[in-house]
Amino acid sequence: MNLLLLDKTDFTGPDSVSITGRRFMHVKKVIRAKVGTGLSCGLINGKMGTGKVTHWDKNGFRMDVALDREPPEPLPLTLVIALPRPKMLKRILQSAASLGVKKIFLINSWRVEKSYWQSDLLDGEKLERHLRLGLEQAKDTIMPALYLERYFTSFVKKDLTRMGKGKKCILAHPKTSQACPVGVSKETILVIGPEGGFIDLEVDTLAEAGFSPFNMGPRILRVETAVTALIARLFPS
Amino acid sequence: MNLLLLDKTDFTGPDSVSITGRRFMHVKKVIRAKVGTGLSCGLINGKMGTGKVTHWDKNGFRMDVALDREPPEPLPLTLVIALPRPKMLKRILQSAASLGVKKIFLINSWRVEKSYWQSDLLDGEKLERHLRLGLEQAKDTIMPALYLERYFTSFVKKDLTRMGKGKKCILAHPKTSQACPVGVSKETILVIGPEGGFIDLEVDTLAEAGFSPFNMGPRILRVETAVTALIARLFPS
Repeated sequence: MNLLLLDKTDFTGPDSVSITGRRFMHVKKVIRAKVGTGLSCGLINGKMGTGKVTHWDKNGFRMDVALDREPPEPLPLTLVIALPRPKMLKRILQSAASLGVKKIFLINSWRVEKSYWQSDLLDGEKLERHLRLGLEQAKDTIMPALYLERYFTSFVKKDLTRMGKGKKCILAHPKTSQACPVGVSKETILVIGPEGGFIDLEVDTLAEAGFSPFNMGPRILRVETAVTALIARLFPS
Repeated sequence: MNLLLLDKTDFTGPDSVSITGRRFMHVKKVIRAKVGTGLSCGLINGKMGTGKVTHWDKNGFRMDVALDREPPEPLPLTLVIALPRPKMLKRILQSAASLGVKKIFLINSWRVEKSYWQSDLLDGEKLERHLRLGLEQAKDTIMPALYLERYFTSFVKKDLTRMGKGKKCILAHPKTSQACPVGVSKETILVIGPEGGFIDLEVDTLAEAGFSPFNMGPRILRVETAVTALIARLFPS
């Protein structure tokens, strides 16, 4: 945790907050803060700054905060990804959030195992927890928007076609010779398939929606490695 | 597993192998192979090709193989990384191997917890297992060389200084304004610090050894995300 994320409900006054629960335990055990300790903090979807611990007891702590800086610029990227297995999804959400992605669609695909859609993880709050961990890691406050789309064809034909207008629309796909673009400045939608890739029919549907396939080189990467590698190539800031 | 890695000891004839143990269980349960199934395979540190299952029983299977293709080109990169916590190390070894890194040094640093050096994982065979998983994922056969270096100062002053001659020597370090290079063609040594970064003295020692610091942008990434993102930027093939 490099930034303590604050909620509006943490505020007890205009410039003071009270922190309990998970964040308190982390600040206690890992950061080992005490009265007087300064901490980086930021209001969720708001400004960032610093806080100073003013009171400490066994249930939580209070802090005076001064939030005066804007969070880092978001990436101009929408990430559309076939739902991975839950354990991998956690890490992907954390790393995507830490890299500055602000819009993520988890979609169905022929090779997505049906059981993944039954995972407890897909409860809104649990997903949000992993996005928060990514923001806390990266020192950012803007919570990514996350959408679940169980119907591949209607999502691609209707929503993705509409969303893609005027944007760079690309699709990671091994069976093509086009290399991954590097250093994109335009607003981009990146589609990444499941382990084993999209089936041909899905690739065709995405192509009709305006998505150009590119390959990632001679090596096959795990989805979580591919997500980070592709974002890093597209936006090597 | 996208490639079945073969050892010399698997061969029962010039073009036939016998597979038992972990690889057998994977091929049985995940790939669900049977007599006649074709599998991508490759000899460790040798050529790649295909195999066809000729015999199957409850303890293993036999396969005829034709190995006629070279593995993908290695990255011209040496990765030097402060020893991360064991769980993260596993994933870093897998992803670095899958990305084509062939030389990895795990080094000590002020902020590396001493207990990490006591981890069971640091037994040679266990480390190699994770590198193998990366090769099997990526379809590669060349096993990365892995070195453990517990003495930061002597390693950097002697070995790293010597190794760096004629190479591009760079160091990921947040406290600098230089951006990460993109698309390097020269043989490169990339040094990545621990969570929390190298201390100033370590950065100075690395600078004396010829390493130029660069920063990774406004966001702080976990080491495992940073490793993948940096390799992808340096070598966006």
